[in-house]
Amino acid sequence: GILETNTRLACKCIMIRSQYIHPKVYQSVEIFPPGSACRRTEVIITLKNGNKVCVDPEIRWVKKTLKALFEAKEK
Amino acid sequence: GILETNTRLACKCIMIRSQYIHPKVYQSVEIFPPGSACRRTEVIITLKNGNKVCVDPEIRWVKKTLKALFEAKEK
Repeated sequence: GILETNTRLACKCIMIRSQYIHPKVYQSVEIFPPGSACRRTEVIITLKNGNKVCVDPEIRWVKKTLKALFEAKEK
Repeated sequence: GILETNTRLACKCIMIRSQYIHPKVYQSVEIFPPGSACRRTEVIITLKNGNKVCVDPEIRWVKKTLKALFEAKEK
């Protein structure tokens, strides 16, 4: 699948998607801060169809989308 | 528990914690954008001890912490 979790590696994301994914298909966005298990910040978007996609927090659209996400008040 | 999920309500968070929680105890932070099921943005922090805590994205420390989270590059 898009998110191959590899038990040997402590990081969750093997394949990271760089193309833009519109927020209207997000069910949730999970951020894993860097820690002892994995040295980098990992961002996993769960889509409304249940798929999970790893995205790179360094990429501009990801930063912008994340920022907008938690500034979105009520719908 | 801290996060009572209530099947009747579409929103996940019943009790929302306002006191500061230091990022070093976070395992992950999940953001649920407002949608058809729940009108407001919900932010659920999973702690390293496995507990899940709902926090209010409107509160200053939450905004600041979320912002810092995805700006944290490598550890």
